[in-house]
Amino acid sequence: MFTANAYAATSATEPLTPTTIERREVGPRDVLIDIKYCGICHSDIHHARSEWGEQLYPVVPGHEIAGLVAEVGSEVTKYAVGDKVGVGCLVGSCRECAYCEAGREQYCTQGGGTLTFGDTDKYGRGTQGGYATRMTVDEDFVLKLPDNVDLANVAPLLCAGITTYSPLRHFGAGPGKKVAVVGFGGLGHMAVKFAHALGAEVTVLSQSLKKQDDGKRLGADHYYATSDPETFETLAGTFDLIINTVSAKLELDSYLGLLAVDGALVNVGAPAEPLSLNVFSLLMKGRSFAGSLIGGLPETQEMLDFAGEHGIGAEVEVIPAEKINEAYDRVLASDVRYRFVIDTSTLHFADDLDS
Amino acid sequence: MFTANAYAATSATEPLTPTTIERREVGPRDVLIDIKYCGICHSDIHHARSEWGEQLYPVVPGHEIAGLVAEVGSEVTKYAVGDKVGVGCLVGSCRECAYCEAGREQYCTQGGGTLTFGDTDKYGRGTQGGYATRMTVDEDFVLKLPDNVDLANVAPLLCAGITTYSPLRHFGAGPGKKVAVVGFGGLGHMAVKFAHALGAEVTVLSQSLKKQDDGKRLGADHYYATSDPETFETLAGTFDLIINTVSAKLELDSYLGLLAVDGALVNVGAPAEPLSLNVFSLLMKGRSFAGSLIGGLPETQEMLDFAGEHGIGAEVEVIPAEKINEAYDRVLASDVRYRFVIDTSTLHFADDLDS
Repeated sequence: MFTANAYAATSATEPLTPTTIERREVGPRDVLIDIKYCGICHSDIHHARSEWGEQLYPVVPGHEIAGLVAEVGSEVTKYAVGDKVGVGCLVGSCRECAYCEAGREQYCTQGGGTLTFGDTDKYGRGTQGGYATRMTVDEDFVLKLPDNVDLANVAPLLCAGITTYSPLRHFGAGPGKKVAVVGFGGLGHMAVKFAHALGAEVTVLSQSLKKQDDGKRLGADHYYATSDPETFETLAGTFDLIINTVSAKLELDSYLGLLAVDGALVNVGAPAEPLSLNVFSLLMKGRSFAGSLIGGLPETQEMLDFAGEHGIGAEVEVIPAEKINEAYDRVLASDVRYRFVIDTSTLHFADDLDS
Repeated sequence: MFTANAYAATSATEPLTPTTIERREVGPRDVLIDIKYCGICHSDIHHARSEWGEQLYPVVPGHEIAGLVAEVGSEVTKYAVGDKVGVGCLVGSCRECAYCEAGREQYCTQGGGTLTFGDTDKYGRGTQGGYATRMTVDEDFVLKLPDNVDLANVAPLLCAGITTYSPLRHFGAGPGKKVAVVGFGGLGHMAVKFAHALGAEVTVLSQSLKKQDDGKRLGADHYYATSDPETFETLAGTFDLIINTVSAKLELDSYLGLLAVDGALVNVGAPAEPLSLNVFSLLMKGRSFAGSLIGGLPETQEMLDFAGEHGIGAEVEVIPAEKINEAYDRVLASDVRYRFVIDTSTLHFADDLDS
């Protein structure tokens, strides 16, 4: 065991505070990562506050992790000290079921794999995430990061990136396809960048036109306000694919009406309340309403390689650790362009100089 | 113009009664069909009773039409007198839009094509369906029927058949795939026959086990009662594809829970009320909820050819025209195994000997 400095929630209701956590020693197949940046994902907040089920505290959130390899185990072959590496939502899975064999570890039959934080690993220890200085990770769950994109901008790709890239690929976004992205925030702006880079014609459907300039700059061909009812008339029957990044309750039938024949509306977030839809909205044009959950390790690596080829990173606001609680408030108020990323060098507290 | 004997609804509330209707003369590209059998589809009832929008009366329902060619226009090349032919839900479409060109006439941009009854044709005349002795149809909307299946059994393929065959093909039902069929009635029993013939492992999910013997005889490998809550535990995460033929309001989340990763639940009917679902049901295994609407002409012909190759027809109860109203009551009570088919020779009323 060794320690790492971290920021943790100690209960569902209190702000996150500095703490020290234990990490396991580097085993033969482990990689020790010197964490440089960690993105703040909306789901960090849900977990820290036990909104998606009761957590065991303390909880160190964070699954958009970018850093450098500090040490490798004796059997590690894929990584060497100094490599730029990342960790996403998973740090383990059974490695034996059909889904693990197919590289779709998020569907591992042993409970969908081991989550990077708030879960229990194969050693029976609670997992703790990336709001920390260091972590030990099985090399199978370590991703190689592109060399040509700043680590701070790469970090959010590990969740926001793969979450949007995966359905774009699965549903065939590319040249000749019309793709709409609902919501222009952390996930939405990544969906726009990837859909554009994949060659699709991209439309943003945002509450207002406030971020229109950013939208166009980041790759959107069109930008419409969903607060304007005319948007739904103008665009009726238009899109082959709609990626919905908004977790609020949506008027599904209105959005399904924007799909062309065979089109799919794909949710990458889930509202807490059930959604209602009229089946005729699906029936009359052979449409689908689907869900998509992050991506497996091979697809995450593919996404990172694609990001490197196209020079894609997230638009970020880098913050020191002491601003995490403030950032949480601003995420909930949608006041971020477009992802907060914690500079983990600010976790080197004065009272813990040896870490 | 010439006349045909028929059975028509004269208002939304009265029983259907015998009548005489006019059909257009056979034009250069038309086929005159001597109708032998016409299936009774649940949607006939909805239309006859103006439950899906106000109709212009009289309404002669019927879009599961099987008969013999009695006459062909001068430019007709595909059919000759005596051929076994059928007509389904469409008798026209623009023939120019991208969907018509792709043979997906049900999505014709000119309002989804011309419905066989209760619509207006390109001549500006109201269309009347197959509860009649004869009809004139553009050869493009005439289908060739298999020689080796009785016409009475073939008739329901024109709607119930294609409605179930199309999503089975679209979603890849075949060897190695597990397909469930919800509801074992007119549509459900066709879905079972086709899914079995396509090589899938087929499970029926029916309210009770009442029709289990029929289900197994017609191709189901397994048969479960949805009234038994254990069914939903036993089969959780099992199916690649579920075809839902039930138009009643369904507990969607329970059925979505039966899908494997990437699985799709496809509705071929639409309940009048909206359905509610928890997006997590889709998200956690990348599932879809989709709708499917009949099929285009080429796919309908493919389905009929496939039915011929595999000797597939519907299980039918043949009735004389005077039993149509009784049959409607029995359809609403789900008291039919598995499709009523009208023997149109019983439409040769004593007072209209020349028709």
